[in-house]
Amino acid sequence: MSDLRIAIAGLGTVGGGTVRLLRANAALIAARAGKSVSIKAVSARDKKKKRDCDLSGIDWVDAPIALAKRDDVDAVVELMGGAEGAARDLAEAALANGKHFITANKALIAAHGGALARLAEKNKVHLAFEASVAGGIPIIKTMRESLAGNRMTIVRGILNGTCNYILTRMGQSQLAFADALKEAQQKGFAEADPSADIDGHDAANKLAILAALAFGAEPDLKSVEVEGIRNIAPADLTFAEELGCRVRLIGIARLVDGKLEQGVRPVLVPKSLPLAQVSGVLNAVMVHGDFVGDLMLEGSAAGADPTASSVVSDIIDVARGNMPFAFGVSAAALKKFAPAGMAQHAGRYYIRLQVVDKPGVVADISAILRDEAISMEALIQRSRSIDEPGPVVIVTHETNAEAMRRVFEKLASVKTVIEKPCVMPIEE
Amino acid sequence: MSDLRIAIAGLGTVGGGTVRLLRANAALIAARAGKSVSIKAVSARDKKKKRDCDLSGIDWVDAPIALAKRDDVDAVVELMGGAEGAARDLAEAALANGKHFITANKALIAAHGGALARLAEKNKVHLAFEASVAGGIPIIKTMRESLAGNRMTIVRGILNGTCNYILTRMGQSQLAFADALKEAQQKGFAEADPSADIDGHDAANKLAILAALAFGAEPDLKSVEVEGIRNIAPADLTFAEELGCRVRLIGIARLVDGKLEQGVRPVLVPKSLPLAQVSGVLNAVMVHGDFVGDLMLEGSAAGADPTASSVVSDIIDVARGNMPFAFGVSAAALKKFAPAGMAQHAGRYYIRLQVVDKPGVVADISAILRDEAISMEALIQRSRSIDEPGPVVIVTHETNAEAMRRVFEKLASVKTVIEKPCVMPIEE
Repeated sequence: MSDLRIAIAGLGTVGGGTVRLLRANAALIAARAGKSVSIKAVSARDKKKKRDCDLSGIDWVDAPIALAKRDDVDAVVELMGGAEGAARDLAEAALANGKHFITANKALIAAHGGALARLAEKNKVHLAFEASVAGGIPIIKTMRESLAGNRMTIVRGILNGTCNYILTRMGQSQLAFADALKEAQQKGFAEADPSADIDGHDAANKLAILAALAFGAEPDLKSVEVEGIRNIAPADLTFAEELGCRVRLIGIARLVDGKLEQGVRPVLVPKSLPLAQVSGVLNAVMVHGDFVGDLMLEGSAAGADPTASSVVSDIIDVARGNMPFAFGVSAAALKKFAPAGMAQHAGRYYIRLQVVDKPGVVADISAILRDEAISMEALIQRSRSIDEPGPVVIVTHETNAEAMRRVFEKLASVKTVIEKPCVMPIEE
Repeated sequence: MSDLRIAIAGLGTVGGGTVRLLRANAALIAARAGKSVSIKAVSARDKKKKRDCDLSGIDWVDAPIALAKRDDVDAVVELMGGAEGAARDLAEAALANGKHFITANKALIAAHGGALARLAEKNKVHLAFEASVAGGIPIIKTMRESLAGNRMTIVRGILNGTCNYILTRMGQSQLAFADALKEAQQKGFAEADPSADIDGHDAANKLAILAALAFGAEPDLKSVEVEGIRNIAPADLTFAEELGCRVRLIGIARLVDGKLEQGVRPVLVPKSLPLAQVSGVLNAVMVHGDFVGDLMLEGSAAGADPTASSVVSDIIDVARGNMPFAFGVSAAALKKFAPAGMAQHAGRYYIRLQVVDKPGVVADISAILRDEAISMEALIQRSRSIDEPGPVVIVTHETNAEAMRRVFEKLASVKTVIEKPCVMPIEE
């Protein structure tokens, strides 16, 4: 085989970028892969659409599934998206037909990664998905290959550029959430319907994949506990700064007593942690391994070019015959961990309450914490004038999420607490 | 072949860590590599030395070269160090005998990487050196494999933890260079003879390897222009902070008009660049690729465990049969670039002068800059009292290194300038 023959399904942002990259750096890629990569066929929804990539000499196929059956194709590259439907059908058909399968589709891998890995191994082909998490950041290969000697204990990441942009701008310019979101939309960093991003579901898909790689497990998306950033106010960013922290939407996966804890939520990150320094639309992932210690990768996650960089690195791996196990270990050996749930999650917490400053309000709040045996590390009250609402911020000593949930319920029902309390863990 | 059989030469810090890691995570490694790794033989200087690794069941060999000739060894791991002598002999013998060769030896690879890569390819075995640069940070694999689709344009790194620790401490606590060095030595972050670190030669070896990977060239250590950090004063850290920057010893490699610029020197890094946020003994490397954009990896570079993590990732690659070209492209295709030299390096510069505050001193200094057509972006003078020496700091607009060299000579000869001027480029 003198070249690797591929087919690409999906010519949107990432698909177009991948075609452009393969053409622009064709000679370089051939020199590094030891063989050239040729695009034999493509498929996309609308053949007539004007695209900024050159499709000359490439067959057009209307039904993507047809790509899986071509004799002149060694590897299928799926860049359509979606956990079900055409993408899943194509994955299953390609692998069953002995084609390598490369995808940028986080939803597909988070939902069906285990089954697809088994299918790939059965058919002795490679399942690759570097572009499914954190765009251009090669975190999949790093965890799967570079850290292969390590027992990984925790993976934490800023996995959604939209949320990180919004939180960064709220902190820099005291923008309200809605205004920061609008700005992100105007700059093309947020979708018209932003809910998948700001409610944390996009990050949850990526976290499930990272957790699977870290712990040699099947992705278990359903067990990821998710909380978005809609409830964050500019005041939270200000108080976080006062406390030496930044607010970040963080995905965290770790093993707790043999159970798998997976959560996506806004947290206070001390500035001494490198993740706190990651600003704007950048993504970053920090992995802890028993020998390597903390390793952080930071880079561009959004856009055609960085994502195409990751897709092409998978293509070159396939061309070179580098085919590690999809999730680090043989699909047959993938574990299924019981979910740990967050209830026992221990740590310090940040609480912000909007209160009417009547006599006794702090006494009421303190009593609720005392009743749960939670002691306070700090309490900040900024009173403007009697009867005008103002914030009260509390930093607790170490407690657990279950106790904090009860505290939250009780605080929310206090008459002088006039908004939903904002509660965030403080990362250590 | 049911397992990968290795031999290890050198049982110092890294060698001991590698043995410990291979034993501690043996089952995990076998699951990820698809086969187990067995240590057949070791060699080190002193057989009687007490070590914190278990050598039971492993043959001891006095002469490391004997490891290259054993029929029961598939791969030789060299952790002795040194560009010549035993390490080089072992590398050449192992590769010539068809053994894979894995090393943590930056000096060996920087000096002989091209020749060893050719020897490896000729004998169809792998030459791997992940641990030679930045300890636990997998920058070699990242550049060689993850960024293989990119045309890399610049690589910049904090490649020496000792220097970064000293500069961090000088900035945090206004320590003099000598005091920060002494502290680093007490904490085990600097050697008794620290010159290889603080004069930049350690970082130069690593930079030559990164440049080779970025541009598909043979390592060219001799062309790296090197300047260490002995000349930095606490005042420089203070002024840098005022200018929104941090001082870091940075290795930089880039192509300029088809020539290769390689330099290691202290520079002012604006805090907006992620490299400025890397503190203490950590290392970090930032690579720019035409599609991926800026990618940064940050982690632990020193010590037994992180370095062992990188050695073992190479061992697992060999076990899996993943054998990319040592420097990204075939050894036969490796280029030799003419050195660009720094003379034409364009950018802004920081200048600190220690002056006796006599009338006319600023006029004299300004005239020297004017004569080289260099305009000033900022001038800070902190006069204490007449006739008491004090600092003058200048930030230039963009100029080039050649002009700055002449300015340096002229400034150094001004009578009222009483110390060697400190000149640093400002990274953009």
